[in-house]
Amino acid sequence: MQYFPAALQDLADQFGRLPGIGGKTAQRLAFHVLSLPLEDAQSFAEAILEAKRAVHTCPVCQNLTDREICPICEDDMRDKSQICVVAEPKDVIAMERSREFGGVYHVLHGVISPLNHVSQDDIKIRELLHRVAAGDVREVIMATNPDTEGEATAMYISRLLRPMEIKVTRLAYGMSVGSQLEYADEVTLSRALEGRQEI
Amino acid sequence: MQYFPAALQDLADQFGRLPGIGGKTAQRLAFHVLSLPLEDAQSFAEAILEAKRAVHTCPVCQNLTDREICPICEDDMRDKSQICVVAEPKDVIAMERSREFGGVYHVLHGVISPLNHVSQDDIKIRELLHRVAAGDVREVIMATNPDTEGEATAMYISRLLRPMEIKVTRLAYGMSVGSQLEYADEVTLSRALEGRQEI
Repeated sequence: MQYFPAALQDLADQFGRLPGIGGKTAQRLAFHVLSLPLEDAQSFAEAILEAKRAVHTCPVCQNLTDREICPICEDDMRDKSQICVVAEPKDVIAMERSREFGGVYHVLHGVISPLNHVSQDDIKIRELLHRVAAGDVREVIMATNPDTEGEATAMYISRLLRPMEIKVTRLAYGMSVGSQLEYADEVTLSRALEGRQEI
Repeated sequence: MQYFPAALQDLADQFGRLPGIGGKTAQRLAFHVLSLPLEDAQSFAEAILEAKRAVHTCPVCQNLTDREICPICEDDMRDKSQICVVAEPKDVIAMERSREFGGVYHVLHGVISPLNHVSQDDIKIRELLHRVAAGDVREVIMATNPDTEGEATAMYISRLLRPMEIKVTRLAYGMSVGSQLEYADEVTLSRALEGRQEI
């Protein structure tokens, strides 16, 4: 690699540090950036700096925003007494796509995961408790991922919320709409059976 | 997507324009950059600008370099009378890895490809002809990829070089070392048979 210009190698290394980008891909991306017109490369660099500069967490719900308070928290039409707790900003987008939920969110920015050295103090649980303690919250809907860590985090938070005497719920488990019984795993099926509803 | 901060969406769009990066991956990369410490994000942006600023083509061989003349062309130990013609800078690295070649290179920066609107004037053929015309070149080794476009480009260039009365050669076709006869395609096999050598 001694015949690779240092600046090109540096750029490839930067790409290689991104998640899911291997050595060959990083090299290809670096070559691509080099082949861009100067102004395109500049606006790429600028987009990185601008995202870091402009985007911060909403002081209310901890979601990412470039305004003082995020558009959802600022929206007078949203029911502030219903808080849906999600792990990541992208989960807010997934929920919003369903157009079902009229309340507000709380983004934890992670889940409790001892294996990855993420403890309860590393995610935004304290902020949630303050929000609930400040009053007027009727229901907290746990919407972390239905995997081990998401489950454990939801259980942990619901235990902390219990003394505050508000309703704490969890997204329903069951079959995906459009999926096939044949391919459903047994745990999902047994949860779907457990949660069966009258029709 | 209206609840995505604009600066974050911009950054995801920038990643999405890179080759082989789809929408979901671009979003994930943008989130990742946002989660980096400020100085890491800054050095990423800086690496892009620095690569564009420092890296240019060597005036002799057209390979990418951050020096005035690239290290290979500047190396007195390399045989300047033997020019190996490759399509891309990364092909120089592949050739160098073999540690077999003691001559110098010429990087075309592409191959002739009418389908992609790349004509003979869009790649560095003229520069190669000037180099050869300037004298002292004994042999030009065509090392474009052994595919249709690489072949056609090699044929085109060799025809231009014919009046100059120098040796023009092509990398040998044949079996990959360590490969299995069973899996070799028929074209490669017939080329390997054609080019068989006494042992």
